[in-house]
Amino acid sequence: MNFASDNVYGVHPKILAALADVNGGTAPSYGGDDQTKRAEEMLKEIFGCELRAFLVTSGTAANGLALSTITPGFGAIFCNAEAHIAVDECNSPEFFTGGAKIIGLNGPGGKITPRQVEKALKGFIRGEHDPKPKGVSLTNATELGTVYSPSEVKAFSDLIRPRGMKLHMDGARFANAVAGLGCTPAELTWKSGVDVLSFGATKNGAMMLEAVVFFDLGLAEDFAYRRMRGGQLLSKSRYLGAQMIAYLEDGLWLENARRANALAQRLAKGLTAGGKVRIPNPVEANEVFAVMPKTMFDRLQASGAKFYDWMPDSLGDAIRPDEIFARFVLSFATPEEEVGAFARLVAEG
Amino acid sequence: MNFASDNVYGVHPKILAALADVNGGTAPSYGGDDQTKRAEEMLKEIFGCELRAFLVTSGTAANGLALSTITPGFGAIFCNAEAHIAVDECNSPEFFTGGAKIIGLNGPGGKITPRQVEKALKGFIRGEHDPKPKGVSLTNATELGTVYSPSEVKAFSDLIRPRGMKLHMDGARFANAVAGLGCTPAELTWKSGVDVLSFGATKNGAMMLEAVVFFDLGLAEDFAYRRMRGGQLLSKSRYLGAQMIAYLEDGLWLENARRANALAQRLAKGLTAGGKVRIPNPVEANEVFAVMPKTMFDRLQASGAKFYDWMPDSLGDAIRPDEIFARFVLSFATPEEEVGAFARLVAEG
Amino acid sequence: MNFASDNVYGVHPKILAALADVNGGTAPSYGGDDQTKRAEEMLKEIFGCELRAFLVTSGTAANGLALSTITPGFGAIFCNAEAHIAVDECNSPEFFTGGAKIIGLNGPGGKITPRQVEKALKGFIRGEHDPKPKGVSLTNATELGTVYSPSEVKAFSDLIRPRGMKLHMDGARFANAVAGLGCTPAELTWKSGVDVLSFGATKNGAMMLEAVVFFDLGLAEDFAYRRMRGGQLLSKSRYLGAQMIAYLEDGLWLENARRANALAQRLAKGLTAGGKVRIPNPVEANEVFAVMPKTMFDRLQASGAKFYDWMPDSLGDAIRPDEIFARFVLSFATPEEEVGAFARLVAEG
Amino acid sequence: MNFASDNVYGVHPKILAALADVNGGTAPSYGGDDQTKRAEEMLKEIFGCELRAFLVTSGTAANGLALSTITPGFGAIFCNAEAHIAVDECNSPEFFTGGAKIIGLNGPGGKITPRQVEKALKGFIRGEHDPKPKGVSLTNATELGTVYSPSEVKAFSDLIRPRGMKLHMDGARFANAVAGLGCTPAELTWKSGVDVLSFGATKNGAMMLEAVVFFDLGLAEDFAYRRMRGGQLLSKSRYLGAQMIAYLEDGLWLENARRANALAQRLAKGLTAGGKVRIPNPVEANEVFAVMPKTMFDRLQASGAKFYDWMPDSLGDAIRPDEIFARFVLSFATPEEEVGAFARLVAEG
Repeated sequence: MNFASDNVYGVHPKILAALADVNGGTAPSYGGDDQTKRAEEMLKEIFGCELRAFLVTSGTAANGLALSTITPGFGAIFCNAEAHIAVDECNSPEFFTGGAKIIGLNGPGGKITPRQVEKALKGFIRGEHDPKPKGVSLTNATELGTVYSPSEVKAFSDLIRPRGMKLHMDGARFANAVAGLGCTPAELTWKSGVDVLSFGATKNGAMMLEAVVFFDLGLAEDFAYRRMRGGQLLSKSRYLGAQMIAYLEDGLWLENARRANALAQRLAKGLTAGGKVRIPNPVEANEVFAVMPKTMFDRLQASGAKFYDWMPDSLGDAIRPDEIFARFVLSFATPEEEVGAFARLVAEG
Repeated sequence: MNFASDNVYGVHPKILAALADVNGGTAPSYGGDDQTKRAEEMLKEIFGCELRAFLVTSGTAANGLALSTITPGFGAIFCNAEAHIAVDECNSPEFFTGGAKIIGLNGPGGKITPRQVEKALKGFIRGEHDPKPKGVSLTNATELGTVYSPSEVKAFSDLIRPRGMKLHMDGARFANAVAGLGCTPAELTWKSGVDVLSFGATKNGAMMLEAVVFFDLGLAEDFAYRRMRGGQLLSKSRYLGAQMIAYLEDGLWLENARRANALAQRLAKGLTAGGKVRIPNPVEANEVFAVMPKTMFDRLQASGAKFYDWMPDSLGDAIRPDEIFARFVLSFATPEEEVGAFARLVAEG
Repeated sequence: MNFASDNVYGVHPKILAALADVNGGTAPSYGGDDQTKRAEEMLKEIFGCELRAFLVTSGTAANGLALSTITPGFGAIFCNAEAHIAVDECNSPEFFTGGAKIIGLNGPGGKITPRQVEKALKGFIRGEHDPKPKGVSLTNATELGTVYSPSEVKAFSDLIRPRGMKLHMDGARFANAVAGLGCTPAELTWKSGVDVLSFGATKNGAMMLEAVVFFDLGLAEDFAYRRMRGGQLLSKSRYLGAQMIAYLEDGLWLENARRANALAQRLAKGLTAGGKVRIPNPVEANEVFAVMPKTMFDRLQASGAKFYDWMPDSLGDAIRPDEIFARFVLSFATPEEEVGAFARLVAEG
Repeated sequence: MNFASDNVYGVHPKILAALADVNGGTAPSYGGDDQTKRAEEMLKEIFGCELRAFLVTSGTAANGLALSTITPGFGAIFCNAEAHIAVDECNSPEFFTGGAKIIGLNGPGGKITPRQVEKALKGFIRGEHDPKPKGVSLTNATELGTVYSPSEVKAFSDLIRPRGMKLHMDGARFANAVAGLGCTPAELTWKSGVDVLSFGATKNGAMMLEAVVFFDLGLAEDFAYRRMRGGQLLSKSRYLGAQMIAYLEDGLWLENARRANALAQRLAKGLTAGGKVRIPNPVEANEVFAVMPKTMFDRLQASGAKFYDWMPDSLGDAIRPDEIFARFVLSFATPEEEVGAFARLVAEG
């Protein structure tokens, strides 16, 4: 029973097979291969618009590179205080942007609100004594398993676009957000004003693959240079392209996400069935965050179930000393029976 | 007939198979997996010493990250003017080091000499008006298919170590150098004073894999932070570890290199057989650089053979206007019959 | 009546005269002049210890350069959330450090506590997923006119030194802190564990002058390179040295600070005399922060008195909507009669 | 007899007096003062065009900040191999630009030619494998005392403007160039296609003062942020404004430069009178570079005359082992009698 993260699982068989399928013969390197081109075409089809897509090997690199197109080193990006770019990437956004400020706002349920951003912007009225506000980054699905709807996303765009700021979406779990919302990828991105998206694939079945997808084509202008300089242009690029093709083909990406999301719902039900566990935020993607008695936490861990004691500062007094805020992540590959077995374990307590 | 680069070929079947072998079940992420640990152990065995090894996905990242441990932004690194770090990485070394100066010296045959470095250092006597000399980077095998022997490497170390400078080796084609020299990996690195090595695997059979190998353990101290910040710590790290294990197991890495080197020798013979082509530098690894009549170049290209017109500034007047300096790269996977067929093509001219 | 800042006043006559005194003849440039050397010697005498001091032209540069010696780009520095380095320098610390994270803690009265730092450090247990904690920066006197005593400073050092972290002091108003505490410069710095100090002079009578003073000599090793690279090594360096000599000579720096501090006490008395104004934090240096009715604020401003409506986020609910948190800064050059006149203005309301 | 540099002399009395003149009372800080505004207005008058000018304290900072507006970290700037930005600023351009490549070309007489740049650009045809060519920087007057005429400058602009590249002029000795050419400041800058100018004042009579002058107003858009972040926005900014006003008023800047240039002519005549010294490049500003017998060099130095043995790599074989390439710099403040005395010393040899 491993609910520690969606990255503890391997690669979807179809994606693994795709690597073998492209292995024969020679291919142009450094992105000149057919697979890389086809992957970009497929993303255009899926998003239903003109776009530019660049493949990279990690979500941290995707975020840093994406942010570097919307803020110079003297700029500021607003995001949730728990966002991956704020607290999980070892200053990588600062590195790729040349020192921009990542300003974390303590929003509810892993989200932030346009109102919070608007209020924060009121502190930026002294010209060059402050960094220049350049963008907002929304994590969708969020770090707490909630999602921003298209209309919620659009509200940010409506606020910041007139101020010349850009909207980034960290979509490490974008598939889970789309699957959870039942909307189209277009609705959740460019139709809602997203300028650039970190389109995640690794957590949802790929091996090492993210795409930086530009809906604002101007931002993409020099991105090839940025990716190269960042050490993210692979020589044998066909293996990224092949992963992406397999990930998108026949809707595998959404199928995987739907499965993981459904398991999350099931696990949430199992957790709360006995009345000892509460789930403060809605379960809208593939993660479940639950407040449980410490004694239960210890018992479940002792039984071999793997999941984390999560400690977001934002929780504050909402949790008692004898309670644990636990995180469970479900994957496309989590065995269904393990979710059932875990529910039984919970019930035993 | 594709001699354009060693990266136009795919992945060695054993390495591809290794990816599938580790695909089942769950594994700790971010380098906590067994494969990553085993890969480091195998590198210790192969180099016969204590070391620290960190896996990354590109040679550019390996170089930039490695250099960042030996120079601050106010430092200088000396290398050959044709070195990958000098002219092929879009300021990536500057990016990872925070702005260090990469000083290219025009050395013979793709190499530089300790004497050149010593002379260059004489220009750094004004304290902080110059950047601080912090290291030398040797590409081995070089960009022109030659190699530095252990004693040649040691001469650099003897020169710079007393000055507090460090020695980096860009080993994108390290296997080819070891195979060409017939020495041990230890002799070519730490026994000759190399402090940190970019140990390449991609060009020689892996999919996307390089290791930054530290013989000077002090340099490795905070490298985990550097790799993370650089977007090079993969969540599903087992797939890098598995590649490395397969690459090293049973000497596959040297076997591949030996094959490519042997093909290079054979191709060189085919080129020069007719007396119209000259090869200025010794063929010591898996690349052949040949001066040929432009007419021959055009004819060979027209016949479908793929290889590059190389244009190193350092050649200067050594080439006539009606000649081309052509590069041929041989791979572990280059079909032997293509080398033969190419030789026949040359002979026809 | 100008209480807007201590930087709205000019240069102390003795310091201005010193510029003219050194103007004749030639002098070695780039720090090789006698004045620069003498300035460093005088700082050694004043601090009573071996040290290295480097003159620069702005407090922002002093802070950024100082921090760059204690943290790499993948590190983190803890400070008060209102600290100049956190909110007033347009990402300059991030620029000079290559992207380090400046983590602002909401401490009381413009200060932070070792306990807060200790708690924050508990969030840094995941290795390279977080930046590496590298230092603490204390502003002394603080941005809210309070001071850290030597024993308070030492408590930070005791906490962080065993963890390999360094202690920086932003002493833009260091003279005011020393004068306010009545301690020695040594007691407030190296005897309390400060490793590097931004020693301010501009606000307290110089023209453009700060010194980066290293008590940890190891940190100073390459500082000359950092200063040069940062554009802070002046060719006509004698004019910085001369300012510093005049600033220190015969205790002018402390005399100026004492005068400003005394005026702050007097202004505080004048403000609170009528019972309508409260001063939440002790007035310990040359700044007064007062909560006053908005009507009074408007009336005083209309009368021509210059001072700012300060808006630190940390105040929170401690202030009513009909109140203003106002800042008054007193300078060595503030006319005494203006403080008296202002007190009368307040009393009239 | 001090001909070591123009920065060994002090401040022109009128500029020194200006500092005292503005010392009384209070003034807005951080560039809000009247002097700063007036300085910008005067520069508009002198250049006869709309422009934006920002005052900073060093030429290194002026260059780095100026270049940061024309190149991102993945870009390249072409200049002479002896340019200050290439070899005298300890990687400061790399620092301010976030790692751009400064590419030094070995041009004649301290200059480069459009043809050289054009040829160099031919090496940048591989897209993101190379940095992106973003600008050319011309030092005027050059590091070898020669000048670019307006038509020479324009030829660079004609070449690079269609390629989207920008033209920077390092005018640390801009006054000497204008004086030497007898042209207008407008002719040498915006009329010839210069986009941004580092307008030097320190060497020619100011204390610590350079202006970054933008003729391409778009480049200036966020410059206030860049200057602040770079630690170059002074709080007591009036003292920079006052220096600039005095420097420009009544043509002091050109008067100073003319005097220095005339002394350079006179010194050159004195050097060559005896037939033992040759001056390879024309003396067009305030510097004289002379090839002299080593014996003469030693004798002159022994007599107390201060000047440097210059060692530009570009000289190559043009100098014999028993010769020295010596630099003499003349200042607005060099005593005329010392030039005469030096000529007599030379004649004695």
